[in-house]
Amino acid sequence: MINPNTARAMTESIGRCARAVAGPSTAIVAVSPSMGPESIESHYDEALAVPGVLAEVAAGERAGTDGYVIACFGDPGLDAARELAAGPVVGIAQAAMHAATLVGRGFSVVTTLSRTAGRAWDLAHRYGFAAACRGVHACDIPVLELDRPDGDAREVVTRLCAEALDADGSDAVVLGCAGMAPFCAEISARLGVPVVDGVTAATKLVESLICLGLRTSARGEYAPPPPKRYSGLLGDFTIPAPG
Amino acid sequence: MINPNTARAMTESIGRCARAVAGPSTAIVAVSPSMGPESIESHYDEALAVPGVLAEVAAGERAGTDGYVIACFGDPGLDAARELAAGPVVGIAQAAMHAATLVGRGFSVVTTLSRTAGRAWDLAHRYGFAAACRGVHACDIPVLELDRPDGDAREVVTRLCAEALDADGSDAVVLGCAGMAPFCAEISARLGVPVVDGVTAATKLVESLICLGLRTSARGEYAPPPPKRYSGLLGDFTIPAPG
Amino acid sequence: MINPNTARAMTESIGRCARAVAGPSTAIVAVSPSMGPESIESHYDEALAVPGVLAEVAAGERAGTDGYVIACFGDPGLDAARELAAGPVVGIAQAAMHAATLVGRGFSVVTTLSRTAGRAWDLAHRYGFAAACRGVHACDIPVLELDRPDGDAREVVTRLCAEALDADGSDAVVLGCAGMAPFCAEISARLGVPVVDGVTAATKLVESLICLGLRTSARGEYAPPPPKRYSGLLGDFTIPAPG
Amino acid sequence: MINPNTARAMTESIGRCARAVAGPSTAIVAVSPSMGPESIESHYDEALAVPGVLAEVAAGERAGTDGYVIACFGDPGLDAARELAAGPVVGIAQAAMHAATLVGRGFSVVTTLSRTAGRAWDLAHRYGFAAACRGVHACDIPVLELDRPDGDAREVVTRLCAEALDADGSDAVVLGCAGMAPFCAEISARLGVPVVDGVTAATKLVESLICLGLRTSARGEYAPPPPKRYSGLLGDFTIPAPG
Amino acid sequence: MINPNTARAMTESIGRCARAVAGPSTAIVAVSPSMGPESIESHYDEALAVPGVLAEVAAGERAGTDGYVIACFGDPGLDAARELAAGPVVGIAQAAMHAATLVGRGFSVVTTLSRTAGRAWDLAHRYGFAAACRGVHACDIPVLELDRPDGDAREVVTRLCAEALDADGSDAVVLGCAGMAPFCAEISARLGVPVVDGVTAATKLVESLICLGLRTSARGEYAPPPPKRYSGLLGDFTIPAPG
Amino acid sequence: MINPNTARAMTESIGRCARAVAGPSTAIVAVSPSMGPESIESHYDEALAVPGVLAEVAAGERAGTDGYVIACFGDPGLDAARELAAGPVVGIAQAAMHAATLVGRGFSVVTTLSRTAGRAWDLAHRYGFAAACRGVHACDIPVLELDRPDGDAREVVTRLCAEALDADGSDAVVLGCAGMAPFCAEISARLGVPVVDGVTAATKLVESLICLGLRTSARGEYAPPPPKRYSGLLGDFTIPAPG
Repeated sequence: MINPNTARAMTESIGRCARAVAGPSTAIVAVSPSMGPESIESHYDEALAVPGVLAEVAAGERAGTDGYVIACFGDPGLDAARELAAGPVVGIAQAAMHAATLVGRGFSVVTTLSRTAGRAWDLAHRYGFAAACRGVHACDIPVLELDRPDGDAREVVTRLCAEALDADGSDAVVLGCAGMAPFCAEISARLGVPVVDGVTAATKLVESLICLGLRTSARGEYAPPPPKRYSGLLGDFTIPAPG
Repeated sequence: MINPNTARAMTESIGRCARAVAGPSTAIVAVSPSMGPESIESHYDEALAVPGVLAEVAAGERAGTDGYVIACFGDPGLDAARELAAGPVVGIAQAAMHAATLVGRGFSVVTTLSRTAGRAWDLAHRYGFAAACRGVHACDIPVLELDRPDGDAREVVTRLCAEALDADGSDAVVLGCAGMAPFCAEISARLGVPVVDGVTAATKLVESLICLGLRTSARGEYAPPPPKRYSGLLGDFTIPAPG
Repeated sequence: MINPNTARAMTESIGRCARAVAGPSTAIVAVSPSMGPESIESHYDEALAVPGVLAEVAAGERAGTDGYVIACFGDPGLDAARELAAGPVVGIAQAAMHAATLVGRGFSVVTTLSRTAGRAWDLAHRYGFAAACRGVHACDIPVLELDRPDGDAREVVTRLCAEALDADGSDAVVLGCAGMAPFCAEISARLGVPVVDGVTAATKLVESLICLGLRTSARGEYAPPPPKRYSGLLGDFTIPAPG
Repeated sequence: MINPNTARAMTESIGRCARAVAGPSTAIVAVSPSMGPESIESHYDEALAVPGVLAEVAAGERAGTDGYVIACFGDPGLDAARELAAGPVVGIAQAAMHAATLVGRGFSVVTTLSRTAGRAWDLAHRYGFAAACRGVHACDIPVLELDRPDGDAREVVTRLCAEALDADGSDAVVLGCAGMAPFCAEISARLGVPVVDGVTAATKLVESLICLGLRTSARGEYAPPPPKRYSGLLGDFTIPAPG
Repeated sequence: MINPNTARAMTESIGRCARAVAGPSTAIVAVSPSMGPESIESHYDEALAVPGVLAEVAAGERAGTDGYVIACFGDPGLDAARELAAGPVVGIAQAAMHAATLVGRGFSVVTTLSRTAGRAWDLAHRYGFAAACRGVHACDIPVLELDRPDGDAREVVTRLCAEALDADGSDAVVLGCAGMAPFCAEISARLGVPVVDGVTAATKLVESLICLGLRTSARGEYAPPPPKRYSGLLGDFTIPAPG
Repeated sequence: MINPNTARAMTESIGRCARAVAGPSTAIVAVSPSMGPESIESHYDEALAVPGVLAEVAAGERAGTDGYVIACFGDPGLDAARELAAGPVVGIAQAAMHAATLVGRGFSVVTTLSRTAGRAWDLAHRYGFAAACRGVHACDIPVLELDRPDGDAREVVTRLCAEALDADGSDAVVLGCAGMAPFCAEISARLGVPVVDGVTAATKLVESLICLGLRTSARGEYAPPPPKRYSGLLGDFTIPAPG
């Protein structure tokens, strides 16, 4: 589980959520990158989270990791991570949308900041779920305030989910931020519809792919990246020529 | 696992494939309907396989089944089964396409009869994978001859997969018939790309959805079907008014 | 005219509507199946209406019928019926959508139950009219209560049509249930827009195709279904091998 | 029947084809405009055919015509004609594509000049048949040479239809020029698939719409054009203010 | 700059707007046709504006014009003009939509009459901007009343732009009529978003294409129209055979 | 002009190409980042080129730059750069596709490595040109070998362009790599179709947007990124809270 931002508390929460659904023989390791933004709330943040994600994937490969989850709803660095990793890599937006389309006809995404709605739509288009995604709704609570003990995020998000279901005519909800994972079961119970958290969904999908012996295709676009010299601050990302 | 046709040997093979990937705490039951076609090779066959599928789902519900796989690549009766079942229902075409898009950019479907290619495209559109599905290719071997011990189906299908990858510029293969499941691992090994069999993929997806507490939404389209009187041959499908 | 449900009064009404527009040399026969649901209000009903529809088509073929209309707005069994019939087969949803796009830029569908809206959208996508279909609106009157003499269905449906035109910015209405056919002329007169009833539209389209010498293509997907043994309750659907 | 070009022989042939399928109570009048191109083989020709088409529609309205067919495969002036006419207006490309989708899964268009293929695709998109249209193929015989008694157009077109069916995996053919109407029955008989000629298809569709009481919606886009002063060569197109 | 209607005041205004952004070495000539409608407010007007536009392009070619702007938001005659002109031809709807997608994620079109909204959508689809176009809104002020000194058009249009941004969730505005060009800077300043006027945008795009040495492709669809005899009122549009 | 890779020779070539088309009052500055890959040939390279691009944009903002071109055909970092920059930002893939659709009906992309074709398609979809993009073809010459004096890249690329036009039925070519810019004029002259180089096209588009007073919308998605603490290697990307 790679949390692309550097907020440790969120990383730990992500690890806990994943472990709660992982199979008995699955070992979950949750990490944050050593570089990058403390939360992801813009294209700028998302783009600059990617080097840290890729450094973690490279470290994971050296450690023999079987598969990866990128635990930010923008799925930052997914394509590049797939080139780098031998095993499967799944983003939590991707996983949540896949799961939602297996249990309903149309889902609403409930996310944090309005300005990230465009990214959610881009991903829905990219993954094939532009028609299944009926709406993207923002609560405009910053990512790092979702878990403030004195906050009302849980209540605000629940209410927004209910409104989204009505407004969109949807029959399922996708939570659009890894920080909302702890609310998932309660919202589902209160609203009586499937509510999908990408962190747990991605955990099960990666487990499933590994069990099925499926790994990212190395034919074509996702083949390992060619050797390349990197310079400056990013010199460590150099991919040496083989041999 | 519901094999929508009445060919028992295929039902047993489907059960074996599913058990090979199921988790230790999952009990797999593979059934065939008591009515309907011995194999599914036309819209006519597919439409007439549905009553048998629904009878098995109804029986499953009485037995407290947690989830269902519809193990024919046309996913016959999927929408109706979802109305009937409390837990998740996944078709093998759906499952295979979902899995393939998680490990590659574009997949080729390799199926049995040419006349079923239209149905495969319909499903790809329905599930959101019209762009990811790069081609549908038929080997024109009838379903029930796939496992003839003296046949060359395995060889023919492998060759067709290789041709499809080249022709379509795809990087993964989806096997378009439950009867091809036994070939899956070998073809993947020989061609060096992910080859997805829907039977095993659907098994893991249903397991995952159950583990995640996700069941088909009962809000709207997939709510239980309203009470209804059925007559004639299909009288047993009557849904009595409650109470 | 095949009414896919077993409600005789509706069958007779469908026959009357069709005869009112049929040409002088056209003989209209309206039938209901001997098996299946008394009305169609769910995917379950629709799937289980198909065997009865196919039995009627098979009977029609033995009687030398020139063409068929499937008179339920979900167009149940259309693909399978096309394989079976020598002449053209048209569904009333299909016919209504075709006609509406010939007289307007965008149509609203006004249908019975909310839960069937998804099916209407699926058909609009399938037939190419996803962009022309501007909205699907439900009056939530059950199919069999549309013609209750003491009911206000006519008034409710008319009002919903007016609201749909405004909400959708559409310029035509498609009535989404064979049971609404008797309201068609009055609603059109009151609202001053084309209101399309699929029963009459399909009657004229099938007549036209027959006159043009056009029958369903037997090349590929719609070729006659291959011989197949059926068992159990559906044994009579067996297609014997030729000769 | 409005033949948008000024070639009288083609106008007569169009009239003959239409009469051959029209009902006993339908009077067919085939006209050519008094101005414009002698055949339509470019966007330039098509655009400049429109004034003549509209003049004929205006004359038809004065004569109380019930409906119109625009008999050129580019459907020139269709939107404007609909504003002008009280009754329905159908183009032959539109009619042919509608009919083809009622009898097959995917059609190939076989047309005259390669440079017109883009227009055929535009219309397929506009009418909702972009997915059903599997290919557009040109024989590169000029429109006015299709009926040369010493020509081999019939043979060339038939061969191209056969090739198109194979190349596109289609199951029906649409003839992409009013001048090909006389070949229709023979090609269909030789190739064993539905071959649709737009002239006859449009004739039946307009007849059907009239019988159904359906006319172009006057709500919104197709309302009669507002009064307007025209000057110069086109002064006669002025629409006077009412009263 | 070709103003497709015959309103001279608008032609002069268009010329002024274009000159205000043109480079120092660009000579702007603004013309109106000698025939056709005094304003364009229906498909009928638009179709009948085309002969005048093409006559101006033909005159321009004789004068050695480097490129053309068609200054009506329906882009009338664009395809035909491209066949005729050696240099690039750009419509103002096209230019405005291109520019808007370079500075925002989604634009709203604010136009004159409701009945022209369908044409704006058609163009958005044609140019690839169906997803970027979030809404089309009409102020229902006739074209020729936009610049009435005593009118409140500027205020009404500004208010509609503000409403459109909110309703559509868009981040840019496209002005849907050449007559609105003079309002552009003020609305942008007041609303704080990019507001695109097609007249100036098209001027810069044509200048840019000329500078880049890019002219309409003469391969295929946009090759010069073949020689053709025109008769009647439109006899002057004859294209003589070469030599 | 930001060349996202660190190859100085390519940066200088990009600057030369841009200056050749820039207006007299435009000052062109071509830069390479101080960090990142020496060429971009994978998703990994592209993702890791973004920090360097953003550092250059930040530097440009401090220097009062009016607008930016991202001169790599994958348009890396475009969304993030737009958040950061006050003036317009255009990518060369975006610019080339926009220009190509203004001079032809369908374009072929000719690019370097096969593995980058997926990215080109993603961008075509994103920008609205999925239908206009008829094919993506790779010459499989590495980026840094395009300008080897002893190489035959120019010849190979020219031949591939000719083949692409035939195979795709396209009428324009888009060169899919900044390194191909020097070949542009010659290929266009030899093949007789518009050949678009994104470097020059983007230069003119940015100039045009600046002249039109159009800058990226700051309403919603592209508003300046919120203050954020960055850590580790990327600490310098911190956006301080205002004040």
